[in-house]
Amino acid sequence: MSVEIAKRYFELMDSTSTGTDEVLDLYAEGATIKSPRKGVIHGKDDIQSFYEANAEFFTGGEHVMEHFHHDGDTVICEGTLDGSTVEGRNFEGVGLVDIMSFDDNDKIESFRAYLDYSAVLTEVPDDEDVPSFRDD
Amino acid sequence: MSVEIAKRYFELMDSTSTGTDEVLDLYAEGATIKSPRKGVIHGKDDIQSFYEANAEFFTGGEHVMEHFHHDGDTVICEGTLDGSTVEGRNFEGVGLVDIMSFDDNDKIESFRAYLDYSAVLTEVPDDEDVPSFRDD
Repeated sequence: MSVEIAKRYFELMDSTSTGTDEVLDLYAEGATIKSPRKGVIHGKDDIQSFYEANAEFFTGGEHVMEHFHHDGDTVICEGTLDGSTVEGRNFEGVGLVDIMSFDDNDKIESFRAYLDYSAVLTEVPDDEDVPSFRDD
Repeated sequence: MSVEIAKRYFELMDSTSTGTDEVLDLYAEGATIKSPRKGVIHGKDDIQSFYEANAEFFTGGEHVMEHFHHDGDTVICEGTLDGSTVEGRNFEGVGLVDIMSFDDNDKIESFRAYLDYSAVLTEVPDDEDVPSFRDD
């Protein structure tokens, strides 16, 4: 059941003992991620690199999820994020939405992350460095 | 029907001839907005000030909405934003989710905005200046 898998995702993300493999297991082979920091990435190899880079950038983090909205094959996860970054910024109550679309095997085939990175970064990126959510 | 009202909201926001009054008409009296720039605000007076401040900050803007997810009384609007700010920053394809919960009269009683402001601002706010999504 996709809402349960979405909840499991955040448990894994906040656990200090979880490896990237357990998160990757939730994804379908040809899955896609869209995120503010990386734009659009495809496939499990790049998804693995994405989570490894995240684990280096965020030195700690806790999701406080308030709603799991559900429409068809899609779960919209709404909440806030507390945490800290390798660059030394601490943040709390930053609004976050992660949208997961599932395939027929209850694997995530599309993950779209929405987060206000101005509350997380220590420098504003140049316009050219801002990855687009559009895949074109 | 709440999805139609959500679509109407973005038409109004992108129209150059729309006044704040038409947007305010979509809201219930005691409505709440949560946004990355302002935190939590309550009531139509503060909501009016919010939209007036937005209209000054964003010198132009176009929403490209991709999905209107629907769960009960809530519509989750997912897309991207193109635009420019009074500070001279132009941006394109910035991921955006606006979540609207409606009352029995199809008025918005809760609006939660999720946008990556690092793609929009010209300076990273201080930690103390980052408003929390939490209402406490």
